[in-house]
Formats: sequence, structure tokens, C-alpha cells
Amino acid sequence: MLMRELIEKKRDGGELSREEICWMTEGYTRGSIPDYQMSAMLMAIYFRGMTEDETLALTMAMMHSGGVIDLGAVHGIKADKHSTGGVGDKTSLALCPMMAAQGVKMAKLSGRGLGHTGGTIDKLESFSGLSTSMSMDKFFRDVNEVGFAIAGQTADIVPADKKLYALRDVTGTVPSRPLIVSSIMSKKLAAGADIIVLDVKTGSGAFMKTEEDSFALARDMVSIGRLAGKKTAAVVTDMDQPLGHAVGNALEVKEAVAVLKGEQGGDLLELCLALGGCIMQLAGLAQSEDEAREKLLECIENGSALERLADYVEAQGGSRGDVYDTSRLPLAPVQLEVKATCGGWVSAIDAQEVGNICLRLGGGRAEKDSEIDLSVGVVLRLKAGEAVKAGETIAVVHASDLAGAEEAASSLAAACSFSDSPVERRELIRGVVK
Amino acid sequence: MLMRELIEKKRDGGELSREEICWMTEGYTRGSIPDYQMSAMLMAIYFRGMTEDETLALTMAMMHSGGVIDLGAVHGIKADKHSTGGVGDKTSLALCPMMAAQGVKMAKLSGRGLGHTGGTIDKLESFSGLSTSMSMDKFFRDVNEVGFAIAGQTADIVPADKKLYALRDVTGTVPSRPLIVSSIMSKKLAAGADIIVLDVKTGSGAFMKTEEDSFALARDMVSIGRLAGKKTAAVVTDMDQPLGHAVGNALEVKEAVAVLKGEQGGDLLELCLALGGCIMQLAGLAQSEDEAREKLLECIENGSALERLADYVEAQGGSRGDVYDTSRLPLAPVQLEVKATCGGWVSAIDAQEVGNICLRLGGGRAEKDSEIDLSVGVVLRLKAGEAVKAGETIAVVHASDLAGAEEAASSLAAACSFSDSPVERRELIRGVVK
Repeated sequence: MLMRELIEKKRDGGELSREEICWMTEGYTRGSIPDYQMSAMLMAIYFRGMTEDETLALTMAMMHSGGVIDLGAVHGIKADKHSTGGVGDKTSLALCPMMAAQGVKMAKLSGRGLGHTGGTIDKLESFSGLSTSMSMDKFFRDVNEVGFAIAGQTADIVPADKKLYALRDVTGTVPSRPLIVSSIMSKKLAAGADIIVLDVKTGSGAFMKTEEDSFALARDMVSIGRLAGKKTAAVVTDMDQPLGHAVGNALEVKEAVAVLKGEQGGDLLELCLALGGCIMQLAGLAQSEDEAREKLLECIENGSALERLADYVEAQGGSRGDVYDTSRLPLAPVQLEVKATCGGWVSAIDAQEVGNICLRLGGGRAEKDSEIDLSVGVVLRLKAGEAVKAGETIAVVHASDLAGAEEAASSLAAACSFSDSPVERRELIRGVVK
Repeated sequence: MLMRELIEKKRDGGELSREEICWMTEGYTRGSIPDYQMSAMLMAIYFRGMTEDETLALTMAMMHSGGVIDLGAVHGIKADKHSTGGVGDKTSLALCPMMAAQGVKMAKLSGRGLGHTGGTIDKLESFSGLSTSMSMDKFFRDVNEVGFAIAGQTADIVPADKKLYALRDVTGTVPSRPLIVSSIMSKKLAAGADIIVLDVKTGSGAFMKTEEDSFALARDMVSIGRLAGKKTAAVVTDMDQPLGHAVGNALEVKEAVAVLKGEQGGDLLELCLALGGCIMQLAGLAQSEDEAREKLLECIENGSALERLADYVEAQGGSRGDVYDTSRLPLAPVQLEVKATCGGWVSAIDAQEVGNICLRLGGGRAEKDSEIDLSVGVVLRLKAGEAVKAGETIAVVHASDLAGAEEAASSLAAACSFSDSPVERRELIRGVVK
């Protein structure tokens, strides 16, 4: 087989065979196929796309490029959730304890944040003493005992994706649907769960800007998951504005805890109910969305979900008391209120810009190895569609110094748009793909 | 400037600025832009194409990536000719002496053959003692004194093309019109002539298989040549069957000499008259095609063109007597006639396959550093459209041993197609783009 011939086949609109895709993926991972041929192939895939068979073959080849986690040591139903990435997305922090409270096991591998989107691992480190690096034995034990565990992604899971993603990032080949599908699904399949639920973000702060693209991605991922033998569903959700109110590591943990305490409703709770509802129905633990919703709300009301989070924090080396009293979490020294200069309605809050503001405050990584400040960020008091009075506080900036806070406050004011007339609220849940 | 952003711009159908193209070409030539980004860019160009402004900018940037030949030391009108490559194409060997006889100077840089197409430098080495490597001083002196010179291409001419072509070759990005145009025209412009005439081959043995693609390439190259300030024309010519009768280094030299002696007419002579006619009209040495044709035929009849070839061979270290007596050129030990098994008309002769047969006989290079046998090859007795009787010799194979000759003879018989009814002869000259 010659890589040049495979590139030409794809370039001319042909369909690559499973054998060809395996050969190419293995060769690239091992280094026998050079970057310059793979990048030409990726660009040809960008323009020509991939059939479902090709996407499945690529996903499976990538999955098998490294170690695959065997969750045989975990008892019961094992579920996993993935989000395509957004600003203020702390869903896993609330959803995992909720699912654990329902008896569904979640053995989650998670990453650190890069750029304007945060990572669950960073957020969790807001709990003093908590560590997400652990042996697989401890990981399985914690999942069995606590009901869930979240560990940093190990190096030998899907090495093909690590190499391919780095190449796509510098060659303009990130936004290709089959490449996105295979990147996400290879990792989810390698993580070993029986049920996979995907949160596909849509809107200005998401990777997929249009609902059409987001649903297409959701459908493709669900198909590939099913073809690979997993129970799979996807929820397409709004990312035109940040999710919930808080953006910033410790601030997001506090918000997730508020949801688990039943102190906060709104879009974050709605999203947990939608994703959790899918998992429960796929697991056969609920016959309908309503039944799932009822059970999930009950585990918030009776405190069992919050208790699961406390169990987890304790198991990972943190203090369970921090969950019940989040004032012990990192707090930035400066808090600056951002006020509305005129009255009206909030028409939009630019999610990506809010993410970048948080990044500039020191709460995210511009480079892979940047140190981050867990305490800083932004808490939005209002969301798009809500009415606002002149002089009312629209957000609070949490910063390490006043100069940074002022710069962030002015950027934040510019990131919010206002209207003289009422604005329709954006629907959070755009649809479910089952 | 970020290469990733330029790739994305081209990928999304944008137009790159002259500044961006210069930056990219320089950076790639110097090595600051890696192969893997350039190959993604090349594939994006394959799919998106380039505007005329972009193609011109790329051509000029490539031309200036290395040394540019200043033909100031050469007196009079300087012309250059380029062929997009074909089988049996010995045109330069006949055309250069003809032009020299008309007083037009040709300072030609030429290459060696690779794959199924031969190189002029290899063919010339059939003259014992002849060397095409020489100082630029000698090159200019020979052009002034003899009227033409043909030298091996020096390393510092258009290094960007050398690097880009090697990358295109392994990444499926060779057949992109703007990339072909910039590759050819950057080299022609760097070679310094005032007049550029292009022979764009079309058909099964050519790079461009359809007439439509060939004319489009011809038009693009003529435009770029003019925009760069050169008098430029192109002739689109048939390459569905080999050009002339001989394929193989020494065999082709003998055929070119036969044309210069007035012993052979047919397609090779016609092509020399068409290309030479373009040059003479662009040079103002003829007012019409007919006038140019008459003058060119005259320099064959009066022996002056043949004398120019003899002068050249002598100037480059060979013996002028070899030109007048080509039986002194290398001759293969085995000659095997290929006979027609039935009567009818020759409907097609697969040019690429004939080239490959010659390659397998040892007359071409499979790899860059292969040694070649100058004596071997094929002489076709018949061309497409001609009538054939059963048992008539259709071709003679020249080989180093009988086994090779027999294998070649059987492949050659398969490369020729026959018809029961008369077949229209293919027009050699499909059109001229001025």
C-alpha cells in the first residue's frame, strides 16, 4: 500500500477500505507515515468527507492505536458523558454525582482546559488536596465504592488522536465532521462504558456554530457509537451564551454544588436533567423523560447526589467538608461588579469572549503548560432574554488584582449586548438524537 | 503571519495576497514552514484553485527563491521552449538548431528523464564525449557562437520548485493547474529568455488527458508569461501516441537528425514547424505562419540547421562527424521486429505504455539514480490511422538481450490497437494559444 495512492483515492472522491484506514492509522501512529502525507490526507478528507463505513473504520483504528480500558472490574451499568466543549460547562461535576445516586457507574477520563474552554480536571483541583492522577486499580475501586470517579486521561489511551489532533490544529483541518466524530468517539469507546451520552454544543461559543451542523455531528456520533455496539444518545444544546452563571474553575465548582444542593435551577440543572434522563432511559432505569426527571430531582432533594460528590472528593484526597461549605474553596482577592449603563433586555452574551476574558484573568491556559489561577473568573447575574435596569449589576469579575479586574469588566460590558425591546430567551435544549 | 491562518483562508475559498504568498514561499524554501503545513496548503489549493493574481504571485515568488539567469551576455533575440512532457519527444534536438539557423538564440536548461518520459540531457549524451555540465561563461559563449546551448539544470535555479515538486509528488497534489503553471513558468522565467513557447501535450500519454484541461493549462501559462513581461505562446499537441517514430535515447537523436537532414517528415517535423513558427512570429522574424514555415523548411534544405547541431555537438566535446553519420551512435545488440498478426488499421498506440516498455528495456530511470542504456528503445514503423497488412512489421525493438526484446515485443503488440475499418488520423496540432 502506498500512502500517496490512498491520498489520491480520497482526493478523487473514492471510499477508503477498512484495511486501508487501519494501515494508514497504524502507520501514522508508529511514525512510518510522515506528517506531510497525513496532513494532505486530512485536507482531502476535509473536502471530500467520509462515508459512515470510513468514519467507523477510522474511529475503531484510532481506538485500537493504544490501550483500551476494560471496565470489567466495575459492577453494574457503566455510563460516560462527553461535551464538545463550551464556556462555563461544569456539567460533569453535577451530573456524575446525580448518576451515582441513581446507581449508574461513571468512570470518567477527563482533560485539562486549553484556550477559552475549561477542563474538568482543573476545576476539580479547586478542592484542596484532591488529585485526579491515580492507578487504574484505585480508579475502578472508587467507581465501585463511590459510584463515579474522574481521572486525568492517561497517555496510552488513543495515541493516534493525540498525534492527529496536534497535526489538525496547525493544518486547518480541525473542522471536519468525520475527523471530529472519530476523535471524540475513539476516546469514548476506549474508555469502556456501555452507555455514551453526548452533549453537542451549538452557537457562537461552540465549535459548531449552526444548529444544522450540530445535529449532523450528533447524528454521526450516535450512529458510530451504535455501530460500535454502545447504547448512545446525543443532546444538542445552546452555547450562544455561557452555560449557567459562573465561568472560572472554583466559581464553577461552587455553581455545580449549588445545583446539587437544590439552590440553583436554570439551564445548568436543565442540562443535567436532559443528559441524565438520556442515560437513565438507555440504562432502563426510567421509561420516560418525565420519570427520569422525577428521580433525578429526588436525589437532589434528599441530598444523596451531594453526598456522592462529598464521597468522591474525600476518596480523591480532598476534604468532604469543602463540598458542604464551598466558602473554603479558592476565592479571588478582588471582586468587581459590572453595571448596566442603561436599561432594557440582555440580547446576547458572547460565550467565547467571556471564555477569553477568564483566560486573560489567568483562569485558563494560553499554552499547554501555563499555570492557572483557580480562583479567578466571572459570575454572570443575568442571562440573555432577561430584563435589566440601568445601574443594575450584570456580572461580578473575580480577579487577582484591580487592574486585571477593571480590564475584564470593560471587556465583559462589551461582550454583552442589550436591546430596547423584549428578547426571546434561547432554548437550552435544541433536541435529542437517540 | 501564521501559516495555519493562510491554510484556513485558502481552504475557505479566500484569495491569498501577494505578500502572503511571498511569505509562505520564502518560509517554505528556507525551512521555517514545515512540509506538513505546506502539504495541507497544496491540497487546499488543489480543491480551491488559485486566481490569476495568486498564480502570478506564486510563480514570481518561486522564480525569486533562487538565482535568476541574466542573459544580458547573449546577443540578439533569446527564446526558450518547454514541453509538458511526452513519450518520444525529441523536439528540442531538432528545434534548437533550426532556430539557431534563423538567428534566434536558445539558451536551454534541461533535465534528465524520470519514469516513462525521457530527458533531453540523457538523449544528448548519446554523442560520445558530449557533456552538458559547463560553467555559465561557457554556456553564454556557446549560445553566442553556436546559436544555442543546452545545459543541465543548475541546483540554485528555483529551489522552491525542487522542494515543492518533491512534496507534491508524494501528497497527491501534482495535478493542480495553478501548481503546474507556477512550477513550469517560474523555471522558464528564471531561465531569462524574452520569448517563451510552450508545448502542452494532450491525450493518454500526457499529463493532461483531455483537450479541455490542456487548453486551460496553455491559456493560464500564456497569461502568466505575459503578465511577467515575456512574449509567450503555447501549442496544444497530441500525445495519444508517441511523438514521431523512435522512443529511446540514441534512437530519438537519430530521428531528430533525420528531420534536420530533410529525410523525415511527419508529426515531429510538423511540431518543429509549429513551435518554431510561434517563436519566429513572436520575434518579428516572420509575419505569418506560412512565412515562418517557408523559412524553417529552407534551413533544413540548405543544411544550415544540421550544421548548427554539428557545431553544438563539437562545442560540447563531442564529434561533429557523429551528426553526419549517426551509425556511430550507440546501437543495441538485439533488434527484434514486431509483426502484425492480422490486417486492418492501427487505431491507437498507447504512448505511456510504449514509454514504460522503453523504461523496462533499460532506456529510462525507474529511480532518480538509475543508470540508463542509451542504445535501447522502440522504433514504430506505423502510426495510428495507417493501414497494416497481416505479417507486416509494425515496430522494431532495440534491446540488450533477446529475452528483454521478446518481452518488450509482446508488450508492444499489446500496446497497439487495431481496427477492421479505416481510422481517422489524429491531428497533431490541436490549437495555438497566443
